[in-house]
Amino acid sequence: MPGPTAYFDPATTSSLDPTTRDLVERRIRVLGGAYRLFYEEPVQFVRGSGTKLYTAEGTEYLDAYNNVPSVGHAHPRVAAAIAEQAARLTTHTRYLDAALVDYAEDLLGEFPAALANVMFTCTGSEANDLALRIAKAATGGTGVIVTENAYHGVTTEVAAISPSLGGLGSVASWVRVVPAPGDGDFAQDVSAAVDDLVASGIRPAALIVDTIFASDGVRPVVPGFSAAIDSVRDAGGLFIADEVQPGFGRLGAGMWGFARHDLVPDLVTLGKPMGNGHPVAAVVARPELIAQFGRHARYFNTFGGSSVSIAAAQATLDVVRDEGLVENARAVGEYLLEQLPGIGGVLEARGSGLFIGVRVANEDVALGAVNALKRRRILLGESGRDNDVLKIRPPLVFDRADADRLLEGLTEVLA
Amino acid sequence: MPGPTAYFDPATTSSLDPTTRDLVERRIRVLGGAYRLFYEEPVQFVRGSGTKLYTAEGTEYLDAYNNVPSVGHAHPRVAAAIAEQAARLTTHTRYLDAALVDYAEDLLGEFPAALANVMFTCTGSEANDLALRIAKAATGGTGVIVTENAYHGVTTEVAAISPSLGGLGSVASWVRVVPAPGDGDFAQDVSAAVDDLVASGIRPAALIVDTIFASDGVRPVVPGFSAAIDSVRDAGGLFIADEVQPGFGRLGAGMWGFARHDLVPDLVTLGKPMGNGHPVAAVVARPELIAQFGRHARYFNTFGGSSVSIAAAQATLDVVRDEGLVENARAVGEYLLEQLPGIGGVLEARGSGLFIGVRVANEDVALGAVNALKRRRILLGESGRDNDVLKIRPPLVFDRADADRLLEGLTEVLA
Repeated sequence: MPGPTAYFDPATTSSLDPTTRDLVERRIRVLGGAYRLFYEEPVQFVRGSGTKLYTAEGTEYLDAYNNVPSVGHAHPRVAAAIAEQAARLTTHTRYLDAALVDYAEDLLGEFPAALANVMFTCTGSEANDLALRIAKAATGGTGVIVTENAYHGVTTEVAAISPSLGGLGSVASWVRVVPAPGDGDFAQDVSAAVDDLVASGIRPAALIVDTIFASDGVRPVVPGFSAAIDSVRDAGGLFIADEVQPGFGRLGAGMWGFARHDLVPDLVTLGKPMGNGHPVAAVVARPELIAQFGRHARYFNTFGGSSVSIAAAQATLDVVRDEGLVENARAVGEYLLEQLPGIGGVLEARGSGLFIGVRVANEDVALGAVNALKRRRILLGESGRDNDVLKIRPPLVFDRADADRLLEGLTEVLA
Repeated sequence: MPGPTAYFDPATTSSLDPTTRDLVERRIRVLGGAYRLFYEEPVQFVRGSGTKLYTAEGTEYLDAYNNVPSVGHAHPRVAAAIAEQAARLTTHTRYLDAALVDYAEDLLGEFPAALANVMFTCTGSEANDLALRIAKAATGGTGVIVTENAYHGVTTEVAAISPSLGGLGSVASWVRVVPAPGDGDFAQDVSAAVDDLVASGIRPAALIVDTIFASDGVRPVVPGFSAAIDSVRDAGGLFIADEVQPGFGRLGAGMWGFARHDLVPDLVTLGKPMGNGHPVAAVVARPELIAQFGRHARYFNTFGGSSVSIAAAQATLDVVRDEGLVENARAVGEYLLEQLPGIGGVLEARGSGLFIGVRVANEDVALGAVNALKRRRILLGESGRDNDVLKIRPPLVFDRADADRLLEGLTEVLA
């Protein structure tokens, strides 16, 4: 298990106000022991708009945490697209659907030409799971290389490559773990991991990384990234870019995190912000890999690529472009990166666009800040191997005024 | 790979009408080689209502195939619930949500008291994958027993227990396969599989079956079901009831397939019809199992249990009850089971409620009937190890007139 995080401790239920206590008790009774609630005092929101969330009493919170409602909470264009399609038809990919093909073409137009196929799933976990299935089928290998505090999802397969879930001891025998970029020499570490797999008789299938290294504490600069990938490919493996968090413009530098590094992955996985909260995700890949996979397996995901999912995804992609959200992410992100280092208690601010990690003294400071900000009606999270990095990752419509409110809050709680 | 099924053959693309051909070619170009389209001539629907689907030209099809839009295509109450919630807020389970707790209580009220916890995912695949993770964590075992033509989903883990996807040779080393009930002695076959696992040094974790054995050709009668489960439990394993297809009233005998057999599973998985097409699914379980799983792993599924998912699921459950769909499934199912054996070419009709398998002479007859029915504007599928079973599995609002239209169509195409 990772260290303590900013979760509610069920042992403190009795200290909550009676209404919250009743709901928390009922929730624990039905959901059981594997769920967590955020914050020392959990909070319920009933409405959202843009970067703001509201409680039943109308109290407004600034959301600097949620990356899923990427074009803003309850965006009217996305909500309308979902409503219109849900009232008309929801069906699956075994019937023809022009909207599905239109969206697939539109989405693939945002990728390098070599990445010309897309397959739809419902979650980033399913996308990473499918990407690994494809990589293993295409390479004949089973070995996978990940970073030290990687998180790639919750299916059996991807939980087994996610040390952030259960610690380094929880990863499968065919997984090799390397330090996050900056904590070591990435090219050398990956190359050594390849050698170690081969020496263990395990053929490498893939290096998979989140291209902003979110759970490793946000690492925008990755010396030796390209050389690391070369060493994997030289051994017959593939490079999977997990864009579930950085993708769709969050980094303020084009649509995808891998493009910031001038890389062309073999497989790319998409998720969280793809439908602004609607469960839709995807794998984008070189067609040869899909063809090879398709020779041994047919693939059908009941809800993946369903009519409403595509309507939500198309509306979200349209809004990202029409509202200039990549440019907004760049501009507001640059402003935050300028201002953050001037705040007392900030040891380092690093990131790209609206994905910023703020390193503070230690875990206690980070967790204290998260809970203190929540009391000031600002939502923020933390990350990193040592839980000492505040994670700024708001909806992409976060504007200069939102940034100022966040900077003010951070200044107060870190003082 | 299983035998040929009622899919479109890309080699025949040039014989399609120009508009369809263009869309099919574009689709193959972007989706690649792992997707399949139904029917010799693929079809596109743009609107649905109740048991009917409509093309852009307004041609009406009777849907006797799709089990996902269980309360009827584009049901207005479900569509309205989705629209209302999507316009207000979509968020996740790390904040409090009274609607989530209300739904969880409502849903669990439909289960035996021992099954008192629920965890939310987005797809049946994720639900079965999570159920296996829980079963393996709780038992310390890894062995899994499935039926010969079982299908439990498409993640790496559940594809490895799904011989219907890639044949008997595709299952993992820790899987044992038994004949479908009726093709062997189920109690004896499962007991022998348990013994074989133990003899191989593999501790049994679970027997998992779809409680209507849909992909095994629909098996409503299961002699020795209880004894089979006893032998698994005696060896320390659990019983997982996969209710992704039979659940939510389809069998016309209460809500769940396991209840028809007077069984209480350790874990139950739900999916397809749960949100009438919205991607929502779940695992229902004994709390001790969830607690044991929670001690080693935290679980968070970004979209699982999200606000819109819960709104869709609650509206669907409400409609199943308010419109008396379990009773309708029973009544119309009984009528079909009375009438079907009188049709020439029907060797056997078996099932429960609106899940009926119709055995015909062989695969060619079954596939011919599926495509001939489609030309008569009736949608049907086939299943079974030998692909010789027509699968009747319509939305639960299928009425007597729909049944008569289907019976008439079957009479014509089997003549």
